[in-house]
Amino acid sequence: MVSQKKIDPWGSLDIKDYRKLFEDFGIESFDKYKNKLKDNRYVRRGIIFGHRDFGKIMNAIEGKKPYIMMTGLMPSGKFHLGHKMVADQIIYHQQMGACVYVCSADLEAYVMRGMDLPKAREIALTEYLLNYVALGLDLDNTTFWFQTDYVVPYYRFRDMLSRKVTLNELKGIYGKLSPGKILAVLAQSADILHPQLEQFNGPTPTVVPVGADQDPHIRLTRDLSGRFQLEYGLIPPASTYHKFMRGLQGGKMSSSIPKSAIALSDKPKEAIGKIMSAKTGGRPTVDEQKEKGGVPEECTVYDLFLYHLVEDDDGLELIYRQCKSGELICGECKAKCSDLMAKYLDQHHKKIGKAAKTLEKYLNK
Amino acid sequence: MVSQKKIDPWGSLDIKDYRKLFEDFGIESFDKYKNKLKDNRYVRRGIIFGHRDFGKIMNAIEGKKPYIMMTGLMPSGKFHLGHKMVADQIIYHQQMGACVYVCSADLEAYVMRGMDLPKAREIALTEYLLNYVALGLDLDNTTFWFQTDYVVPYYRFRDMLSRKVTLNELKGIYGKLSPGKILAVLAQSADILHPQLEQFNGPTPTVVPVGADQDPHIRLTRDLSGRFQLEYGLIPPASTYHKFMRGLQGGKMSSSIPKSAIALSDKPKEAIGKIMSAKTGGRPTVDEQKEKGGVPEECTVYDLFLYHLVEDDDGLELIYRQCKSGELICGECKAKCSDLMAKYLDQHHKKIGKAAKTLEKYLNK
Repeated sequence: MVSQKKIDPWGSLDIKDYRKLFEDFGIESFDKYKNKLKDNRYVRRGIIFGHRDFGKIMNAIEGKKPYIMMTGLMPSGKFHLGHKMVADQIIYHQQMGACVYVCSADLEAYVMRGMDLPKAREIALTEYLLNYVALGLDLDNTTFWFQTDYVVPYYRFRDMLSRKVTLNELKGIYGKLSPGKILAVLAQSADILHPQLEQFNGPTPTVVPVGADQDPHIRLTRDLSGRFQLEYGLIPPASTYHKFMRGLQGGKMSSSIPKSAIALSDKPKEAIGKIMSAKTGGRPTVDEQKEKGGVPEECTVYDLFLYHLVEDDDGLELIYRQCKSGELICGECKAKCSDLMAKYLDQHHKKIGKAAKTLEKYLNK
Repeated sequence: MVSQKKIDPWGSLDIKDYRKLFEDFGIESFDKYKNKLKDNRYVRRGIIFGHRDFGKIMNAIEGKKPYIMMTGLMPSGKFHLGHKMVADQIIYHQQMGACVYVCSADLEAYVMRGMDLPKAREIALTEYLLNYVALGLDLDNTTFWFQTDYVVPYYRFRDMLSRKVTLNELKGIYGKLSPGKILAVLAQSADILHPQLEQFNGPTPTVVPVGADQDPHIRLTRDLSGRFQLEYGLIPPASTYHKFMRGLQGGKMSSSIPKSAIALSDKPKEAIGKIMSAKTGGRPTVDEQKEKGGVPEECTVYDLFLYHLVEDDDGLELIYRQCKSGELICGECKAKCSDLMAKYLDQHHKKIGKAAKTLEKYLNK
């Protein structure tokens, strides 16, 4: 393995973009767990860069004690490589021994995004859950639920949360409110906390892997857990924070901008098309690039290697160095990326076939 | 039967107190249904004085078509004669052929009144439901539920309501809001409307008997039903409005002021004590009363006859006239009332014994 110092091409961006999260909001650097969790690509490469209270989870992992990994999915559009990053984390924790809880935020989709519920449900199953399974999620050891179709103790707890929070507090965190938004927020807290109720796992350390934009919600939920301390002894949930993959066009990666994201259902040909038109860190001319070298830190194709396509750090470092030195120019690099991506998608599509059967069995249980 | 003109001792109060409900809020007088529903004491005596949209319900009754009677109970304290008035209406509608839905507003008790849920549940069962059964409710033809313990389509619908209402709209109706209040309000609307979902009865005329103070909620719920017109074809719920019994001390009747209310679990002796110290419409001296006559309109003992103890209108009119003429003075009248009340409570307590068995069977089903 290559040292972090050498291979940490995001390091400098980290500090610029994420330092204020550490300083202003008390998110802690994930560095201290890098060595212990070095088998995780996202940890090793600083993509998971911060946490709150992760010590509890590390203790549980090391002590082989129970812990909960909770996450939600927003069923909106195709499952793409940005979502895969979260899926990989879910599966990683499952393999580390976590009880996995996965929620389809269809209430939020309905009230905040105006989606139909049947449509939200279909997307949750056919895009998200199916790909989770194909990526390695063990459904038999997963609690999966829809916010609009679950069990009474969950709804009861969600309702109970409403007594423990004021409207001003929610306004301070979420700005302009609506009845739907308030419900969605309470649902999200209940999603995270209810696995600790006695009807589920009971009080158990819980980790929620999120993007930094979700931190306000983590803070609220941690606060709310304390307000049920006497009643239920809830343990404030821990969190980890990951960076977002940028879209292939340079902006946001979103399933509503097809060229920004490679969906895991994309045919290799489609994916290659997107890679070919992706924004890179290349120079205006080949000559200039050969002279000055590329800027992988600004390259969305490099992101594909970094996040998904190259597990081996030496291999990644090689690409990084070759780019920096001007040895590897964008056309060649994109061809290399396309090749890896096509292979990856081919393999994944085979897994999807098998996953579909597993999912069907699970749903008919 | 005595004519309304003669026997309507509340008539003048009616007009003073309730006219603005007709004029300002569009509640309609119940007079047009008085003759058709003259077998109902509360209708006949103008205690049920107003309605919205009751025509639909009258049509259903006359056409022997399905309709729904929905009501909620607030599980707070002892079941008293004020609650009995509502119970009698539930049972009346059940006997007229209505599908009865009764909700225990334990979420509201929890979020708005700071009650414990187990306590709220116990009160709902041992005070309210038990007395409903003793008074004649047929549990086998009743859907009874707790807001915190029910079925998914109800929770889903409650959540869905949140998309169809704004915070400003709720503020306009309910004033200062809190997350708990918002949830309780949405729950109340879902309580009323969900029986019309396809998982329950499907679109069906629904009547909600309430006090006039509940009208803002009826209006909101009627509005909300319209916003689900396309999706679910909900019929705006009808409502009837009843007057409130005054407390025996003259103020509010409330189980939190024991002397204000005769609980149906009161021993006859306790009840008699309350009657003996009740505020009457009597004059300062017996002589003055014999000369000028009493004021039954201001008498809480007369209320007991009017609402509960005297079914026969001629009998009631006799008391009214004897009071007005000065023939019946308060001591004698209280003795008469005490006698009737003691008999009533004795009978009711016997029914309670039987009802307890019925309820136990129902709860263990």
